[in-house]
Amino acid sequence: MSKGSGKQGGGASLQPPRGTRDFYPEDMRRRSWLFERFREIALRFGFEEVDAPMVEHAELFTRKAGEEIVEQLYHFELHDRHLALRPEFTPSLARLVIARQGALRFPIRWFAIAQNWRYERMTRGRRREHYQWNMDVWGEPGVEAEAELLGAMFAALDGLGLARGQVKVRLNSRGLLEESLRGGVLADRPEVFAPLCVVIDKIDKIGAEAVTDLLCSADGEVRLTSGEAERVIEMLGARSLDEAARFTTPGSQALADLRTLYDLLDAYGIADQVPFDASVVRGLAYYTGVVFEAFDAQGSLRAIAGGGRYDRLAETLGGRPVPAVGFGFGDAVIGELLADEGLWPELGREIQDVVHAFGPEEKTAAIRVATRLREQGRRVELTLGQSKLKRVLGDADKAGAERVFLIGEDERRRGVVTVRDLARQTEHEESLDGGSR
Amino acid sequence: MSKGSGKQGGGASLQPPRGTRDFYPEDMRRRSWLFERFREIALRFGFEEVDAPMVEHAELFTRKAGEEIVEQLYHFELHDRHLALRPEFTPSLARLVIARQGALRFPIRWFAIAQNWRYERMTRGRRREHYQWNMDVWGEPGVEAEAELLGAMFAALDGLGLARGQVKVRLNSRGLLEESLRGGVLADRPEVFAPLCVVIDKIDKIGAEAVTDLLCSADGEVRLTSGEAERVIEMLGARSLDEAARFTTPGSQALADLRTLYDLLDAYGIADQVPFDASVVRGLAYYTGVVFEAFDAQGSLRAIAGGGRYDRLAETLGGRPVPAVGFGFGDAVIGELLADEGLWPELGREIQDVVHAFGPEEKTAAIRVATRLREQGRRVELTLGQSKLKRVLGDADKAGAERVFLIGEDERRRGVVTVRDLARQTEHEESLDGGSR
Repeated sequence: MSKGSGKQGGGASLQPPRGTRDFYPEDMRRRSWLFERFREIALRFGFEEVDAPMVEHAELFTRKAGEEIVEQLYHFELHDRHLALRPEFTPSLARLVIARQGALRFPIRWFAIAQNWRYERMTRGRRREHYQWNMDVWGEPGVEAEAELLGAMFAALDGLGLARGQVKVRLNSRGLLEESLRGGVLADRPEVFAPLCVVIDKIDKIGAEAVTDLLCSADGEVRLTSGEAERVIEMLGARSLDEAARFTTPGSQALADLRTLYDLLDAYGIADQVPFDASVVRGLAYYTGVVFEAFDAQGSLRAIAGGGRYDRLAETLGGRPVPAVGFGFGDAVIGELLADEGLWPELGREIQDVVHAFGPEEKTAAIRVATRLREQGRRVELTLGQSKLKRVLGDADKAGAERVFLIGEDERRRGVVTVRDLARQTEHEESLDGGSR
Repeated sequence: MSKGSGKQGGGASLQPPRGTRDFYPEDMRRRSWLFERFREIALRFGFEEVDAPMVEHAELFTRKAGEEIVEQLYHFELHDRHLALRPEFTPSLARLVIARQGALRFPIRWFAIAQNWRYERMTRGRRREHYQWNMDVWGEPGVEAEAELLGAMFAALDGLGLARGQVKVRLNSRGLLEESLRGGVLADRPEVFAPLCVVIDKIDKIGAEAVTDLLCSADGEVRLTSGEAERVIEMLGARSLDEAARFTTPGSQALADLRTLYDLLDAYGIADQVPFDASVVRGLAYYTGVVFEAFDAQGSLRAIAGGGRYDRLAETLGGRPVPAVGFGFGDAVIGELLADEGLWPELGREIQDVVHAFGPEEKTAAIRVATRLREQGRRVELTLGQSKLKRVLGDADKAGAERVFLIGEDERRRGVVTVRDLARQTEHEESLDGGSR
């Protein structure tokens, strides 16, 4: 995608705000192509598109679990209101659902392609806005919903031309963690589960020791015993359900759900693309159960997509309980992967016909021809001003045109138009209304 | 479009910010349908889609001509930057063009479908955000560009089902006004032309007398003589080019351009839909030549679309001069008109197939059937959880489905699926992989 170049004297900045993108025609064609792939898969899976304002009341996003996403909020006071650009779509989605909770027929399957804003430090090529394809199921407590979402995610990856194996989804359940601490810290202080997960999510960045310190710190919110912390860190090492089973409580519901989920993923033909990985907990506070994140198989890029179950978000926002699960799939990392793999298609202007008048006297005839072609549904460029024929033909070729319609003085006098077929390199005349001569 | 309903105790507001809209599935289907009509026409006219960030440096929008749009700017300081939500797309477009002015091949034809924000007083059903279809031509000084744009606008109205005559475009040229004052006030103070037009635009709201007072006020920026003001007000009364000719200077270029424009509009078949009206000047400072606005023929709604030529905007923003003309076509007023005329189509979910497993044991077979159908490009809803057959069939019918695929214990054991055709009320069995039995 494009960045503006330079600032010219005397005028406003020609750059978009730092960390944001302009979309020139060639950028926009790629964006539209990508979004169309997302939309097509969402519709094949029976999902309905929704949207919400990009500006929301800031309180919708301000949670107190220490998440990075809240620290990075684009928020501001305006006319005594505290507003924010959404950093993610899920809270808006929850707001929509709760506002009509009595009238909606659950389960609902909704998707959105939404621009999100995060005020990130500009490192590692990160930007401050990105578009995200969101797919969510509300009202289904069972892991069928997770399976359907992962099925859709892989169908989208297929649609983008990524062969099976180029993207892996690492999957876990916060339920395993929650169950193992239920008899301990969570018995008295269930509210620490969210900040606990947010801390654990940092393990790849800061290491197990630092995470343990944060979990046990007397000044911290979580305050695990060192025994609990040790057990948690150990559990994060599990890389199969059988390994995880060694840490779970007898009759673990989370483990049973995971086994069911893998049976379903097998029916979608994707179980082997979704390795279990107990270290995946995700950095958002609201997840309650299964969580997952998609990565390129080489592991050279950031996460392509991520999601999970958030069964208590509706309550948190003042609604009645309703189970929910979803994922977000950004446009940035997948764009890098498609570029690395040479998978972006050639996307041209796709003009079909060019209509050109040689002089001012022929302009009205050219307009009539262009109008006729457009009414047939053709994509037609009508040349403007005065151009040399050579340039017209060169531009037509570059724009992908199949035919060029030429009207000079001679054609005008005889009421005809010369039609040049660019592929076949042939020419014929037809009357202005399209009748053959 | 929908408004959130009510605030629930304990949680965040369930309302979107005042003046903004949520898009539930039924709202989104309409929005998508409208945008698709816009996009289709833009492509038929050979325009290319572009976009820019919704948040820009505020200085891009802050002009000093007294425009309402600048007073209504959503702007805020964030991390020592003065940012704003765009109130219109044109300045962003100009920024994109100027940043690549040396590399672009003019004329360029660009379109965008962009959300804009204006902090309006919430009266007369106005909202604070709307989407606008923008069509612009850069690099063509002749009125062919205006004609092409108006041709596209009427093609879009046709595409929306509005019969010719239901929408009128009133058209004028600021050039007439500029020429008539060129020997007077503009000779010494050319910079007052923009604020002069902004004042004149208020005539429908505040009347000719108040406008005259503002134009002549010694405290004002414009300071016309009473003779000049009288001449201006008189000129605004012209409703035909021949009437306008009585006020123009000999050899008026603006008048000649208007005559050429009407010849071209005639070739598009729309000249009689575009009455000349000298009172149309538009409220944006940057217009320099032809201006126009589209209204419903009854005149009961606000403007549907508006635009004009802005040949000096590039310079104002620090670029090299390049002529430009364009229009904006909002989603709000056209939505009201389509509703009034009963022209919104019925837009359903358009599910094609529903796949239902009667019990948990049949879930994997149902997934395999759904996957097969989706790979064929069908839009498939896979039921989740446990539903009664009656409800499944009722929902399928409501979603527009053609077929329901049912898998119970009997089907599973025999490796088949029962296919019910909802339209024909017939049933047959096929194997799970789609082979006939």
